[in-house]
Amino acid sequence: MRIGIFDSGIGGLTVLAAARQAMPGHEIVYLGDTARIPYGTRSPLTVVRYSLAVASHLVQHERVEALVVACNTASTHALPALQAACQTLDIPVFGVVEPGVEAALEAHTGGAVAVLGTAGTVGGGAYQRALAARAPTLEVHAVPCPLFVPLVEEGWLHGDVPRQVAEAYVGFLRDRATTVILGCTHYPLLTDVLGEVLPGARLVDSAHATARAVSAVLGAGEGSGGVEFLVTDHVERFQHVGAHFLGTVPSPVRWVDLGPAVPPFTSP
Amino acid sequence: MRIGIFDSGIGGLTVLAAARQAMPGHEIVYLGDTARIPYGTRSPLTVVRYSLAVASHLVQHERVEALVVACNTASTHALPALQAACQTLDIPVFGVVEPGVEAALEAHTGGAVAVLGTAGTVGGGAYQRALAARAPTLEVHAVPCPLFVPLVEEGWLHGDVPRQVAEAYVGFLRDRATTVILGCTHYPLLTDVLGEVLPGARLVDSAHATARAVSAVLGAGEGSGGVEFLVTDHVERFQHVGAHFLGTVPSPVRWVDLGPAVPPFTSP
Repeated sequence: MRIGIFDSGIGGLTVLAAARQAMPGHEIVYLGDTARIPYGTRSPLTVVRYSLAVASHLVQHERVEALVVACNTASTHALPALQAACQTLDIPVFGVVEPGVEAALEAHTGGAVAVLGTAGTVGGGAYQRALAARAPTLEVHAVPCPLFVPLVEEGWLHGDVPRQVAEAYVGFLRDRATTVILGCTHYPLLTDVLGEVLPGARLVDSAHATARAVSAVLGAGEGSGGVEFLVTDHVERFQHVGAHFLGTVPSPVRWVDLGPAVPPFTSP
Repeated sequence: MRIGIFDSGIGGLTVLAAARQAMPGHEIVYLGDTARIPYGTRSPLTVVRYSLAVASHLVQHERVEALVVACNTASTHALPALQAACQTLDIPVFGVVEPGVEAALEAHTGGAVAVLGTAGTVGGGAYQRALAARAPTLEVHAVPCPLFVPLVEEGWLHGDVPRQVAEAYVGFLRDRATTVILGCTHYPLLTDVLGEVLPGARLVDSAHATARAVSAVLGAGEGSGGVEFLVTDHVERFQHVGAHFLGTVPSPVRWVDLGPAVPPFTSP
């Protein structure tokens, strides 16, 4: 099978790595919408439109037969719209929120659960709803951490600045939240700093849980596998920053054009 | 006259405020491309395409008769393309780089000049070329400061975190650069922190110099003036963050759609 993994940029490479381990026999097409990153600060409507444009490209031009939405903000805002659009074509669409919540509750042994995410992910409430549906009496803290993405994108993962930013966002959770869901694909790279600010807390990221959930439906695959990378903006930056996430330089990477169209200039 | 001011988001509101003072008798349409912000990390090609799409909308749908590119990254990468596109329609296009450089050299009394900007602005080299053309023997330091924009967008303008970020980027300029060009419309909001890290340095922003350069060509205008705001993503966030820049809440604000088109989902 040919599986599309869609992310706003590079963060979803953590999901890709887990998916390759869990499903080595499927072909994977990874699309990072780097021309429109970040999704986390945009309105729900804009995230839905961007997500539909990306999914449409993957389905029609890359002929994917299943779609994994690695971006938490896109999973939060756009999953129902993507599932509705793909339903008539019999293309299953998987998000990261439900698998992440299941993994967190499996590991949770009491106390409060925290969800860290972008402003969009926290404001959209998908994590809070998924937790409340499974554990209605659980104490949940959902915390937007908007500077974490730019810090990770700049490779600023250790030292005083990221620690102070983390302290400002989540210091109040110390000795309070025992399980912390990293509700953004960038956040696993801040594990060291978050471990210092929240000693003893279990940090749960959804990459492996999502890969498990997808492989439970699609199987491990029986082909020879293989990965292609698509980006909507510069290839070099994707390869440079992507190496932090993947451990190796992502390759081969192709540029794809998702617009906007530039109309000719004429008198009004 | 009807003048379009174009920015990647909210930072250009500093240019708008200066333009209203200098040209109270012209109508101004401000367009913030908030659905695609930030421009500073994107490739030159993508910035050119986004800029042309925005300019085309302002010319054809908003019927502007002159265009001011308030965004430094767009001025750096896209000014020639915008001028070429607008030339046959007799629409003048103004950027912020040349006026900023002129203001800096007027104020400069010796020592080195620093230019702080996004990765795109510094990498594009427009400031460095404009300085070298006027003062070939000047010592120039061009420094990318990628975390400044997210810090300002989050309203994190004072205290340890922005000061440490500023120290990491520009601490080496202390007692070395006497004039510092704030080559991004967001940076004037970090004046306090930059003043602490670079005591005694002259901080030059291009908003007033740009407004002066535009009014020298177009005059102050003889109408009753007025401003309209257009954004490509959520109106509320623009009003909330924009108030930091403008001192008042920008109003009225209208949403405009610059794509991408979402094609219908069909079988490949």
